[in-house]
Amino acid sequence: MDFVIIDIHGHYTTEPRQLHQFRAAQLRGEAPSAAALSSEVSDDEVRESIEGNQLRVLRERGGDLMLFSPRASGMAHHEPDASIANSWAQASNDMVHRVSNLFPEQFVPVAQLPQTPAGNLDGVLAELRRSVEDLGFVGANLNPDPSGTWAGLPLTDPSWFPIFEAAEDLNVPLMAHVSTASNPNFHTLGSHYLNADTNVFMQLLPSDLFRRFPGLRLVIPHGGGAVPYHWGRYRGLAMRNDWQDPSELLRNVYFDTAVYHQPGFNLLVDVIPASNVLFASEMLGAVRGADPETGTEWDDTLTYLRASEQSQDDWDAITHENALRVYPRLAARLAGGDL
Amino acid sequence: MDFVIIDIHGHYTTEPRQLHQFRAAQLRGEAPSAAALSSEVSDDEVRESIEGNQLRVLRERGGDLMLFSPRASGMAHHEPDASIANSWAQASNDMVHRVSNLFPEQFVPVAQLPQTPAGNLDGVLAELRRSVEDLGFVGANLNPDPSGTWAGLPLTDPSWFPIFEAAEDLNVPLMAHVSTASNPNFHTLGSHYLNADTNVFMQLLPSDLFRRFPGLRLVIPHGGGAVPYHWGRYRGLAMRNDWQDPSELLRNVYFDTAVYHQPGFNLLVDVIPASNVLFASEMLGAVRGADPETGTEWDDTLTYLRASEQSQDDWDAITHENALRVYPRLAARLAGGDL
Repeated sequence: MDFVIIDIHGHYTTEPRQLHQFRAAQLRGEAPSAAALSSEVSDDEVRESIEGNQLRVLRERGGDLMLFSPRASGMAHHEPDASIANSWAQASNDMVHRVSNLFPEQFVPVAQLPQTPAGNLDGVLAELRRSVEDLGFVGANLNPDPSGTWAGLPLTDPSWFPIFEAAEDLNVPLMAHVSTASNPNFHTLGSHYLNADTNVFMQLLPSDLFRRFPGLRLVIPHGGGAVPYHWGRYRGLAMRNDWQDPSELLRNVYFDTAVYHQPGFNLLVDVIPASNVLFASEMLGAVRGADPETGTEWDDTLTYLRASEQSQDDWDAITHENALRVYPRLAARLAGGDL
Repeated sequence: MDFVIIDIHGHYTTEPRQLHQFRAAQLRGEAPSAAALSSEVSDDEVRESIEGNQLRVLRERGGDLMLFSPRASGMAHHEPDASIANSWAQASNDMVHRVSNLFPEQFVPVAQLPQTPAGNLDGVLAELRRSVEDLGFVGANLNPDPSGTWAGLPLTDPSWFPIFEAAEDLNVPLMAHVSTASNPNFHTLGSHYLNADTNVFMQLLPSDLFRRFPGLRLVIPHGGGAVPYHWGRYRGLAMRNDWQDPSELLRNVYFDTAVYHQPGFNLLVDVIPASNVLFASEMLGAVRGADPETGTEWDDTLTYLRASEQSQDDWDAITHENALRVYPRLAARLAGGDL
């Protein structure tokens, strides 16, 4: 195992301007072509967008490899047109695929899905299969709230099942990650992301979803929203209401470490077993720059992990063993073989 | 100061059955009278509902006094009829007022407001004044999401300002506490409460609300939702976006301690200064019974507070000094004087 520190949560937040222009054209009612976009962006432009940014930071901090998906807030699943969503997901996924082709040792792609408030199930399944089977993606981001204002149904509703079946079949995990909030009460980065994480966990807790999909693996980002901080509340609610214990969800549910200060990070690794914590920074993401009090960059979660003083076994689990288990296609890719 | 441990967050979750019948009659379209309800419930019934429940638990754990408001999930502000909301708030507030009259040493009332999705501002202001000025209530619960599905506007919208003006004028704090969720994606006790706390904090962070209302005090319950766990994220977001620092909100914003396990509790008192933490249990609330691993009742936050090993100064601040400062009408009441 050459890779020792795998960051499972990075987004292409430094994407070439042509991708933004593509999206703007879409929203103006034009139908720009994903293939044409690809030829408009040179390899040098892609390299440049990464080398001074995610790749530089990854190296500076001592990370080895990052799972890399399109910008989460840019997914914008609240736009209702399915063909626009399909084309947007293709263009976005093609772009992270190019990053991965140019930096195969450091970036491994994770897909955006062309969800819409109405579902767009055919498009979602087609893009999931294309990205995984044709392009070598190792996972996908699933938005539990395509509307951006919780107008849809919980993840436990059967309307989601075909996606879970496909994820099981393809043996890829899904990160439950919302996109832009479309409700003035929610701030995309400051509350909507975290609240979605909490909602997802709570939707799963009373459900039998994983009896139906025992091979499904869900990753809850941002340290699980409020969940580890309120772990006792969930245990108590489960006992009182005769739900499964929260720990039973840990057969299928994982938390990333995108928590941006030491006390919060420590709580996460204190409360959630190391077997279910996956190292992640979500850099360069919501929060850039450094804490003036400590000099540590907010999203330098590797510094927090080091300071949390894990045993060697737990360090190995959190930095790569869990990632290779939860993302078997990543393990196969790194081993140079097929799944 | 006779009282040393003040629990600022308790609800009348053991209310007499007649109150439930009153509500059922309302929802059937009848117009039951709050005055008639009062005569239907005997003092003995009120005493009984408290003595074996909140009063027993308060005494067993070593608490002295509880701020006591109607059941939060029962406020049900999503019901649109203003006259029904007015009558329901009156009946509910009259009932906690009776508890307080029967146990004046242990229970001090906090009001439910007759909010509706459309606002019902006249009713809200009238009931706030009635409860505080006529009945001696020391605070009120303000629902930041009367719709139960975030269909309204953020707390920073001017439509809320008359309530803040009244709270400033009456010198009472408002606890930002939602009621029943009316969206299948949200679980009232397991995610809606916590997410509302997070939403409220995030709504305040970029705003100048407290420049406009410097005397307004807001209490965020349930340990602040996800906020202390993600304190670094908020600091970083504030720096990046040129908002006020989260610590600046602490001139006007307070967190209660309704966090139901030791690691979460420790995080709260580690991250938030003792000057802004108010002891609370929200018992008997969302979670009843004890953790089988420790024998500690989930909502026995006094046990967590003791184990968190505060200095005497911080202990005094958290257990009563902050409460007397944030709720000056409580201080006046305990001193036997007027405000």
